[in-house]
Amino acid sequence: MTAVLNQPAPVQASRVMGLGAHRPDVIVDNEQICRWIDSSDEWIRQRTGIVTRHRARPEVSVVDMAEDSAREAIEQAGLTGADVDAVIVATVTHPYQTPSAAAELAHRLGTEAAVAYDISAACAGYCYGIGQADALVRAGTARHVLVVGVEKLSDFIDDHERSMSFLLGDGAGAAVVGPSEEAGISPSLMGSNGEKWGTVSMDGSLLPLRDALAEARRTQDASRLLDAEERLWPTLRQDGPTVFRWAVWEMAKVAQQTLDAAGISAEDLVAFVPHQANIRIIDEMVKQLSLPEHVAVGRDIADAGNTSAASIPLAMHRLVQEDPELSGGLALQIGFGAGLVYGAQVVRLP
Amino acid sequence: MTAVLNQPAPVQASRVMGLGAHRPDVIVDNEQICRWIDSSDEWIRQRTGIVTRHRARPEVSVVDMAEDSAREAIEQAGLTGADVDAVIVATVTHPYQTPSAAAELAHRLGTEAAVAYDISAACAGYCYGIGQADALVRAGTARHVLVVGVEKLSDFIDDHERSMSFLLGDGAGAAVVGPSEEAGISPSLMGSNGEKWGTVSMDGSLLPLRDALAEARRTQDASRLLDAEERLWPTLRQDGPTVFRWAVWEMAKVAQQTLDAAGISAEDLVAFVPHQANIRIIDEMVKQLSLPEHVAVGRDIADAGNTSAASIPLAMHRLVQEDPELSGGLALQIGFGAGLVYGAQVVRLP
Repeated sequence: MTAVLNQPAPVQASRVMGLGAHRPDVIVDNEQICRWIDSSDEWIRQRTGIVTRHRARPEVSVVDMAEDSAREAIEQAGLTGADVDAVIVATVTHPYQTPSAAAELAHRLGTEAAVAYDISAACAGYCYGIGQADALVRAGTARHVLVVGVEKLSDFIDDHERSMSFLLGDGAGAAVVGPSEEAGISPSLMGSNGEKWGTVSMDGSLLPLRDALAEARRTQDASRLLDAEERLWPTLRQDGPTVFRWAVWEMAKVAQQTLDAAGISAEDLVAFVPHQANIRIIDEMVKQLSLPEHVAVGRDIADAGNTSAASIPLAMHRLVQEDPELSGGLALQIGFGAGLVYGAQVVRLP
Repeated sequence: MTAVLNQPAPVQASRVMGLGAHRPDVIVDNEQICRWIDSSDEWIRQRTGIVTRHRARPEVSVVDMAEDSAREAIEQAGLTGADVDAVIVATVTHPYQTPSAAAELAHRLGTEAAVAYDISAACAGYCYGIGQADALVRAGTARHVLVVGVEKLSDFIDDHERSMSFLLGDGAGAAVVGPSEEAGISPSLMGSNGEKWGTVSMDGSLLPLRDALAEARRTQDASRLLDAEERLWPTLRQDGPTVFRWAVWEMAKVAQQTLDAAGISAEDLVAFVPHQANIRIIDEMVKQLSLPEHVAVGRDIADAGNTSAASIPLAMHRLVQEDPELSGGLALQIGFGAGLVYGAQVVRLP
């Protein structure tokens, strides 16, 4: 018989210890949007709930925004960078195939060689990150896990594209997850519906652009590169009605299943923080979950637009900042988006 | 006092239940390489140990390769796709910002809405994935986790670039991690050295290409796009000597710490499977760990080159295929690469 392997000692429970947010300082209002697409401030407000989005300046990177939000979350947790032993960055807009944003972030924060990786789970990325952090802490693999949802979506949209670009903004939100004596994070309900892979996605891979560039250099004929009809730089786009129906019908069910798995009812919540995709999706979910009046609902979309992986921590940060009495109460969070993928859990607010 | 949250029931231990591999059918030998760069078959063999690399055909995607390796791993585990409830794809060469390769893969494999996300941790990606899978299973968050390391590096290299491109190949390797009564995976040692972020990386972000394309369209002047001196499509490159020293000196220490954390010695191993970056790194690690003669060493690099996240499962798959008696024994695996990041653990071979 071969030797027996040690295992890390598991930990009783985990909790969110601190939150942080970064909101870029360039504001894009609906008036500006209507210079790019044929629409109106009134239509955009009614159909999406969006009044403004924030955009990062060209010189501000995904890692810069992540760092700013992370420092606040670490400070609120009563920790320093050296206490953080894992860094998970949820993003789809880091403009390098490799290395990860997380590795640079872990260094900037002064961690001592922390575990560092990026995850790609689009608008569910933050909830996926919290689910992983909870498992890493409870399994004894890491002690303090920083989870950042960060996007610079303005780098991967086309302002003249009508299905999605006008909804999107930049930003970052962060949380620190650490050990706890009492459960501060419920079972995570995470999943995917990959048969709908194409309903929210880039409108193409990066490779046709590479090939067109190589071909133009070989032939010294740039006509394809100069043809405005050829969309060579991929942009995000969606089949809005399909995604809307999926979000309203399927995600309300997942939200209810998450409450059931947590062993609580909507009455026990102080806050509901869904992904900020569209105010009508949020309102419909509130209705289907029969949320009581006392439950505060994240409606950060009016200010921030849809910031993908950043939207839930940004909205949660705003709720707690506006009403500090929510602290210590239970919040249901649910993310959903490109993949299609979804993730949800109940967390005790720090 | 607010309601108490349920938590998932933890599981005693986890283990690797099955392995799978995909080796693309286009073979690139050193003779071919020497048509692109000034070198020789002898020099490449002596300095790197590489004789051939495999490349995927243009129509074969990262998801195609991942699927092929995953089906073998799931079958060896005695499961079907419906049993898999989480899919982690470690890759840096999926050519879409979003959605993830994992979401499409989870659908193709017939999972029932499995958790699905990609991770970016370069050549440490597979070991990071195994570390996460172990935590997800032991924490009770998932039951059967598929981990795939897959790369189509040929899409992100420049055959005329001298520091790295000639080392790299395409491929996929997969493992299924599930519950176990005895520990089949030791504590994972994972970390980063982000101060060396630039030593293995893309040679630029994607954004200058986007900006050059937009500018050329605006001005109808394509001269920058056609200038061969402007490397607009980013390619992988490395500071070889720095990475070599880091790998040899620091990674041998991490490998020893992993044995210590597992509570075993090199005598207890049947196999050592380091990331396949360079045969001289592998040989030096074997020496520094004072590995006994009976320990089989993964030297798949001769055939496969460096396949980043795919290299460890590919090398492990080959070892067990060539010597089925290794099955049931303990293997030390260690990945390291761009970030810089590293991950290691001891696993019982399926």
